[in-house]
Amino acid sequence: MPDMLAIGREILAAQGFSRLLGTEMTAYSPEGAELRLPLRPELLQQNGFAHGGVVSYLADNALTYAGGAALGIGVLTAEYKINYVRPGVGSALVARAEVLYAGKSLATCRCDVFSVLADGTEKLCATAQGTIAKVGG
Amino acid sequence: MPDMLAIGREILAAQGFSRLLGTEMTAYSPEGAELRLPLRPELLQQNGFAHGGVVSYLADNALTYAGGAALGIGVLTAEYKINYVRPGVGSALVARAEVLYAGKSLATCRCDVFSVLADGTEKLCATAQGTIAKVGG
Amino acid sequence: MPDMLAIGREILAAQGFSRLLGTEMTAYSPEGAELRLPLRPELLQQNGFAHGGVVSYLADNALTYAGGAALGIGVLTAEYKINYVRPGVGSALVARAEVLYAGKSLATCRCDVFSVLADGTEKLCATAQGTIAKVGG
Amino acid sequence: MPDMLAIGREILAAQGFSRLLGTEMTAYSPEGAELRLPLRPELLQQNGFAHGGVVSYLADNALTYAGGAALGIGVLTAEYKINYVRPGVGSALVARAEVLYAGKSLATCRCDVFSVLADGTEKLCATAQGTIAKVGG
Repeated sequence: MPDMLAIGREILAAQGFSRLLGTEMTAYSPEGAELRLPLRPELLQQNGFAHGGVVSYLADNALTYAGGAALGIGVLTAEYKINYVRPGVGSALVARAEVLYAGKSLATCRCDVFSVLADGTEKLCATAQGTIAKVGG
Repeated sequence: MPDMLAIGREILAAQGFSRLLGTEMTAYSPEGAELRLPLRPELLQQNGFAHGGVVSYLADNALTYAGGAALGIGVLTAEYKINYVRPGVGSALVARAEVLYAGKSLATCRCDVFSVLADGTEKLCATAQGTIAKVGG
Repeated sequence: MPDMLAIGREILAAQGFSRLLGTEMTAYSPEGAELRLPLRPELLQQNGFAHGGVVSYLADNALTYAGGAALGIGVLTAEYKINYVRPGVGSALVARAEVLYAGKSLATCRCDVFSVLADGTEKLCATAQGTIAKVGG
Repeated sequence: MPDMLAIGREILAAQGFSRLLGTEMTAYSPEGAELRLPLRPELLQQNGFAHGGVVSYLADNALTYAGGAALGIGVLTAEYKINYVRPGVGSALVARAEVLYAGKSLATCRCDVFSVLADGTEKLCATAQGTIAKVGG
């Protein structure tokens, strides 16, 4: 039985962009994926909040992992949509993605991104919904 | 009369994340915005293509600028949706965003992201559509 | 204290299109809205499933109601996105929408649409996410 | 060589819901699809504008046709997103959809929906972007 979390971390470590940002995978199972990204000045926009592109990146990546858990290795995000609801603040962002439905070649996934405050409490920052496709599917 | 491009570049320079990535603003007018991002290994994913999060970031940022051109300073991306159509490859990505409709407090914008190949030709990489909102609107 | 369900049903009855389709409002509270639409041949597509436009209509309408519960009377759906996951079948469709976050003039809402089978069990048919805006906001 | 418009109209005529609404197909080619829907009281909402569900239905249907022109018979809309920009008014709505990119099993399409005023001029009412999938793809 493969260790999903180990495989997920290996893929993450092979992404130059995820290394540049400092993303960590904190959970990966058939039910979904969780990514964590500690915030630092290089990840912010001009008002001191997490850049929308950082929030999107984290949601997109978590969605892809969730879809991969359902469809198998070799998937990509075909599309997704994200609503930003509160500024990304605090010590880290955490994204939790789950599969809503998976067919043979497409999976519909959902992801919530939370700001993790200094005291550990979480606030919803953004919510995303997307389609993951098997490559060559 | 304000120099829109200069203002846009100033805002971009104030975004730690855009500096980390190396984004350049190449056009900014009431008609829309153009951002350019030279590709390098730190911006790729495990297969050697631009990371989806990089493509999203560029689209999101260009959408916000386009909306700001219509609604005025002090806007944010409320939401957007992106379809990835081809891998991001080549020497750079370029995002071009325009306003489809602007009301008093919301603007609907569209953005295409292209891969710029070595010979300068462009290939559509992703297309996005989103809602920009005036802050406090 | 206003009877939300009565107000919601009054608005629904004033929508010519909802009367044409036969939509019923089965719940409406500050937490969200539930709409139910009995299926009949006039609501299907060429393969005998609920037409995607019927599913979308129900999701869109439920999203607007949910947003209205948070923002007050006088709202509209600014945008939404829907993923169809299974064909709409059975005796009826039911849409359940909730508010994920509401600010002063915008609310982010989510809606699941289910097929109601002959034995009363429900199957997820589609899932939607959208932005509701206060009119003139 | 098949007459695409004739095939498109045959499919439309087989959709109970499209007959209920009164949709006409006015163009269908490898480049895209055009649908037209005369407005009447049964298609409106409580303020006298075209119901959002009517606008969505038309966009969704046009997107599916556009995708089918690229992928072949046997497609469905996997997902789409729509931004409403102006109320649907006038004598009819017209939806024009085109293919932005088509792979083997997925196509990314775009659709604009216009209000057709009494003098024949058109005003953008909504814009949509979606993913069409080959059935069983």
